[in-house]
Amino acid sequence: MNQNSAEKSLPNLTHLEATGQAHMVDVSAKAATVRTAIALGQIQMQPETLAAIEAGNAPKGDVLGTARLAGIMAAKQTAHLIPLCHPLPLQKVDVQITPNPDLPGYDIRAEVRLKAETGVEMEALTAVSVAALTLYDMAKALEKSMKITNIRLLSKTGGKSGDYLAAQ
Amino acid sequence: MNQNSAEKSLPNLTHLEATGQAHMVDVSAKAATVRTAIALGQIQMQPETLAAIEAGNAPKGDVLGTARLAGIMAAKQTAHLIPLCHPLPLQKVDVQITPNPDLPGYDIRAEVRLKAETGVEMEALTAVSVAALTLYDMAKALEKSMKITNIRLLSKTGGKSGDYLAAQ
Amino acid sequence: MNQNSAEKSLPNLTHLEATGQAHMVDVSAKAATVRTAIALGQIQMQPETLAAIEAGNAPKGDVLGTARLAGIMAAKQTAHLIPLCHPLPLQKVDVQITPNPDLPGYDIRAEVRLKAETGVEMEALTAVSVAALTLYDMAKALEKSMKITNIRLLSKTGGKSGDYLAAQ
Amino acid sequence: MNQNSAEKSLPNLTHLEATGQAHMVDVSAKAATVRTAIALGQIQMQPETLAAIEAGNAPKGDVLGTARLAGIMAAKQTAHLIPLCHPLPLQKVDVQITPNPDLPGYDIRAEVRLKAETGVEMEALTAVSVAALTLYDMAKALEKSMKITNIRLLSKTGGKSGDYLAAQ
Amino acid sequence: MNQNSAEKSLPNLTHLEATGQAHMVDVSAKAATVRTAIALGQIQMQPETLAAIEAGNAPKGDVLGTARLAGIMAAKQTAHLIPLCHPLPLQKVDVQITPNPDLPGYDIRAEVRLKAETGVEMEALTAVSVAALTLYDMAKALEKSMKITNIRLLSKTGGKSGDYLAAQ
Amino acid sequence: MNQNSAEKSLPNLTHLEATGQAHMVDVSAKAATVRTAIALGQIQMQPETLAAIEAGNAPKGDVLGTARLAGIMAAKQTAHLIPLCHPLPLQKVDVQITPNPDLPGYDIRAEVRLKAETGVEMEALTAVSVAALTLYDMAKALEKSMKITNIRLLSKTGGKSGDYLAAQ
Repeated sequence: MNQNSAEKSLPNLTHLEATGQAHMVDVSAKAATVRTAIALGQIQMQPETLAAIEAGNAPKGDVLGTARLAGIMAAKQTAHLIPLCHPLPLQKVDVQITPNPDLPGYDIRAEVRLKAETGVEMEALTAVSVAALTLYDMAKALEKSMKITNIRLLSKTGGKSGDYLAAQ
Repeated sequence: MNQNSAEKSLPNLTHLEATGQAHMVDVSAKAATVRTAIALGQIQMQPETLAAIEAGNAPKGDVLGTARLAGIMAAKQTAHLIPLCHPLPLQKVDVQITPNPDLPGYDIRAEVRLKAETGVEMEALTAVSVAALTLYDMAKALEKSMKITNIRLLSKTGGKSGDYLAAQ
Repeated sequence: MNQNSAEKSLPNLTHLEATGQAHMVDVSAKAATVRTAIALGQIQMQPETLAAIEAGNAPKGDVLGTARLAGIMAAKQTAHLIPLCHPLPLQKVDVQITPNPDLPGYDIRAEVRLKAETGVEMEALTAVSVAALTLYDMAKALEKSMKITNIRLLSKTGGKSGDYLAAQ
Repeated sequence: MNQNSAEKSLPNLTHLEATGQAHMVDVSAKAATVRTAIALGQIQMQPETLAAIEAGNAPKGDVLGTARLAGIMAAKQTAHLIPLCHPLPLQKVDVQITPNPDLPGYDIRAEVRLKAETGVEMEALTAVSVAALTLYDMAKALEKSMKITNIRLLSKTGGKSGDYLAAQ
Repeated sequence: MNQNSAEKSLPNLTHLEATGQAHMVDVSAKAATVRTAIALGQIQMQPETLAAIEAGNAPKGDVLGTARLAGIMAAKQTAHLIPLCHPLPLQKVDVQITPNPDLPGYDIRAEVRLKAETGVEMEALTAVSVAALTLYDMAKALEKSMKITNIRLLSKTGGKSGDYLAAQ
Repeated sequence: MNQNSAEKSLPNLTHLEATGQAHMVDVSAKAATVRTAIALGQIQMQPETLAAIEAGNAPKGDVLGTARLAGIMAAKQTAHLIPLCHPLPLQKVDVQITPNPDLPGYDIRAEVRLKAETGVEMEALTAVSVAALTLYDMAKALEKSMKITNIRLLSKTGGKSGDYLAAQ
């Protein structure tokens, strides 16, 4: 089992003060180091839907391209969507969307990097989520029963709390 | 039979023009009718994490309250997150977050309503997604292996394409 | 005493559901009527600060012009600032800023109008608040002890709950 | 003596150039130091309104919790609301809302901190203002005559112009 | 010469009040009719730059696809960019980008449509401008001397002031 | 001919990966240095339109003042408009708008500065573009045939790729 110690110790919820009120954690005393985070997710659909997207998409790439861009742009909006996230000047955002015939559907992967006082897990997870929502939007005339699923953190590096790599 | 005919006929992707380029669909000739959409989703976590949130949350309610508000506010930002969504003056947004010991984790449900020329599925799905992301953010110091999953449309009503109710 | 009956009856907090959870009120069944709201506010300062703004401002008008525009633009952002406000396509926003030597400082007045299912009080109050904050920002190198004060609703018209005119 | 020398010398308005045109001040040559700002404000209401909020709020905390979150999120939007403010990656935002039976109403306090080239007074004042507006929004069905008042800077530290502590 | 009479009569600047202060024009008394606007623009570049974009873009379409999406999304942000624009729930936005070897460079065309009380010229012009800026951003490593030029309104329809068709 | 070598070598499009997919370039390994960019642009109009703006504007300055502020505020929104731009905490933004009777119309100039890992060309070009769009908006009741033209980069300094000064 490869979960890091931070998970095991179950510390207090850092966003909750002693009185239980939500606040943005003070990171001004932390060191600025290079942080990375990789998040994953999936969107499941009927095989016919996947086939239609792949066929319709082949010549122009706009369905997947639109979803990738939406994920990248959403990463930059994370601090305006997640109330207690710190605004961060992201230095790299990359979103990959890969057809997965076994699902069937698409695998989505986002990687975010910057040098800062706090981590970028939420930015990577937000990029995956909004890319998946955009795929749903682009294909919902074909199928409304698509399901966005399995959004999780694959890894993070940098920062005092140590690196994290998800268990298989 | 609980999928509507729109799914079965696999029409063209309405966001793609003849040339395959993405565009925002023209809805100016559609009638303004009352539209509703309900979306569901879940976040899975270790039983200890659920217990900690429930205990820490009991006196003040800020973890779930923060996630609910984030979901409501995100619904209002949908057209700025999903590239080809129409901006809509939402008239009702409601987000419910319920502990689910069997998961273990939380069930999330969002309902959106307005009178407009186009539907509000994406607004409901976006509300669920951002509420889930906020739950992750509020509890990630406890557990990084939480998983956001099973985000889907439960139902939609209103509009020319007919009502939709997800299969069980 | 000229407070309207809505104040006297002390109805339930409409943003709180039976369970006490915040939600955006459903206005989809309300009629779209013309709504207006006028809000007032003040910023107090040392006489020397007022004199400096008036002198520096006289030839170009940029201090007051900047604050007016900031108020107008903020009114359009109200639904993204106030969590449970409905997004509304505002049809008129007007901000007036008048020197008041007796204060000393400035009187700020904002008027908002549109045809919609819900009122525009928050938009007018937000316009006044952000105009006042901008005045503070533009003059804070002169005086940090300026005080924003007396922000209140002067009147509202339209809507089922009746018109409101503040007591003197 | 409780105003710093910057106030007494009445320097030129730093946002106005020689020609009187508004511009964003160049801070690229300033040193990045830790900056803090604390702002205060109040919302006055009828005793019945305060009692209703306190009673309705007791079990769930959503009225005050919503206002606190709105204040925190607004601090992150300051540079998009106040035209000549510099965008800053805030490292701490904290909003406190305390019932004040003598007012009657609520005292609001916001504290902002980051390491940067310029101060965070506007972010703290914006957090107080939007928290107050949200309180108004959440309770306006009870009373429209509530008044937002006494918004001011309590203190700032860091930066070349010296620390500031408001006079009593 | 086919300019409409509105241009000839040189009416007062509708955004300026009697006192010369900027304000958002009241459109609440205007009728909601279907409005369309088409705007055009160009970006000029070296023939080698055009060839590189066309070659690099051919298999994936992402340069032009990115610029198209940026234009569409910017149209939805118009009221937050242009201070006195009314926020409008756009019902159609379409952006076309066509290589023009004679320029050399690209021709950009945006069409916006909705049923509303005021026109959508600014939304169409904003879409063209941001699509052009995005093309510049995507290709600036190839050539910094690209020039965005000739942004203008081709036509508008709907509204009391009559239709407009630009002179050739 | 004074174009720098970066233009001549026609390197690959840095926003396109090997597979042709758009992504935000990783700048986390670049050094933070002071960057400046100056962009220029023009808006052409009938002599009568220029005269009307100059006359109407003389006493209050609001047309040009509004456009200047819109340009400054838009520079701060660049990363939310241009999909692959990095978010940057701008440290100086200055917009100048000068009447040009020979055009006739206005010359627009924006200068942006900050210490960062990547350049600010897009912020300067965005400021010019939105200032020009705002001028159009403020005067479009006078003349719809105004043309925004000649938007280009005058110079950039800082960064590894060397300085750039546009050819005359």
